Amino acid sequence: MSVRVISVLENILQANDQIAAENRARLDAAGVYAINLMSSPGAGKTALIEQTLRALAPQVRIGMINGDTTAASLDAERGAQAGAMAVHVNTGGNCHLEAHMVRQALAALDLSALDLLIVENVGNLVCPSGWDLGVHARVVMASVTEGDDKPYKYPAMYRVADALVLNKIDLLPYLPFNLDYYLQGVRLLKPDVQIFQVSCRTGEGIGAWADWLRAHIRSGQNA
Amino acid sequence: MSVRVISVLENILQANDQIAAENRARLDAAGVYAINLMSSPGAGKTALIEQTLRALAPQVRIGMINGDTTAASLDAERGAQAGAMAVHVNTGGNCHLEAHMVRQALAALDLSALDLLIVENVGNLVCPSGWDLGVHARVVMASVTEGDDKPYKYPAMYRVADALVLNKIDLLPYLPFNLDYYLQGVRLLKPDVQIFQVSCRTGEGIGAWADWLRAHIRSGQNA
Repeated sequence: MSVRVISVLENILQANDQIAAENRARLDAAGVYAINLMSSPGAGKTALIEQTLRALAPQVRIGMINGDTTAASLDAERGAQAGAMAVHVNTGGNCHLEAHMVRQALAALDLSALDLLIVENVGNLVCPSGWDLGVHARVVMASVTEGDDKPYKYPAMYRVADALVLNKIDLLPYLPFNLDYYLQGVRLLKPDVQIFQVSCRTGEGIGAWADWLRAHIRSGQNA
Repeated sequence: MSVRVISVLENILQANDQIAAENRARLDAAGVYAINLMSSPGAGKTALIEQTLRALAPQVRIGMINGDTTAASLDAERGAQAGAMAVHVNTGGNCHLEAHMVRQALAALDLSALDLLIVENVGNLVCPSGWDLGVHARVVMASVTEGDDKPYKYPAMYRVADALVLNKIDLLPYLPFNLDYYLQGVRLLKPDVQIFQVSCRTGEGIGAWADWLRAHIRSGQNA
């Protein structure tokens, strides 16, 4: 039975990559730079989107696709309230976004009115890493409250990161978090990853993150 | 293609339930009470196991099966160091434990030397909820640092919880966490869930959690 599953999964992944390529072509044609934002539940993806809007909008026109396992569109509403053109995707219990879900969401957005598209994946540090959504960069977000051992335990996610946003650094004084050990693990898996240490609560470090986004939007290049 | 996938998945779930029933019969015959401990990455599952050992061992003889996506057995080593008979399961990238993995791990344990078995699942708030492992209770763990909206966004996991351990309450003074809103969401999904508010760092609340386990071990009843 397992062989049959693998062959079906391979077909699905091939179909996904095909749709992802179409999504990317569509975004490129519209001049929209897009990122896939992935993390554990509660690492602060929506808070980062709110801070990004505060830093870049309205000069940069920002859209948001929010993937959730249910119909509850709490995060998309937060994004819309902060000024993003927001689309909610109900994955129907599925643990990650796939390219066909993003394709559907793209059809609901006016891409000509956007410069940057942030795809907020389902909160999950395992499954989303394997699925190309047709964006330009994969951004992994982590929180210092998750502990300093996470790169060692969830390497597949850290390995695909073009950029890493380490959030909640305002809580470091209250936590036994060894930053050197954490960063060593990250760099073992992805030596050239861009790392941003931020607090979405205080705004610390958001400037450097916003500058990185701005450079990529301007150049239109992949990370 | 999707219909084919669903039929394969149904076969897999049926096979899983069959193996889970066998696991449970085996644990029952040996008089071992077993729990499936599930949470986001970094909520504190291994720290809870360490505290549980401190509270209950050696009077209660504790075993641990630790599921990880890689060969790195960091958590099983922590459990063993704290005094548990520990077995590490490498899921090979899989995002959750399944009953056949637990069956293999059970074969590596001397069940006659155990009273309590804690199965530490892969850190994932989505996928593990759908898989019966053949234990007696599902314990969901959460951390206040994940935010108070998690029951509303990950209902499938909260719905299967027999007990909920809310960890890191020592950090509440530094967080915008609305406990009433959080608990309201939990009780909407699972009105009769047992809730323990703990800090695995300070030991606060561990006593009540240990009492609950002790009562179930003694009675041999399901949660």
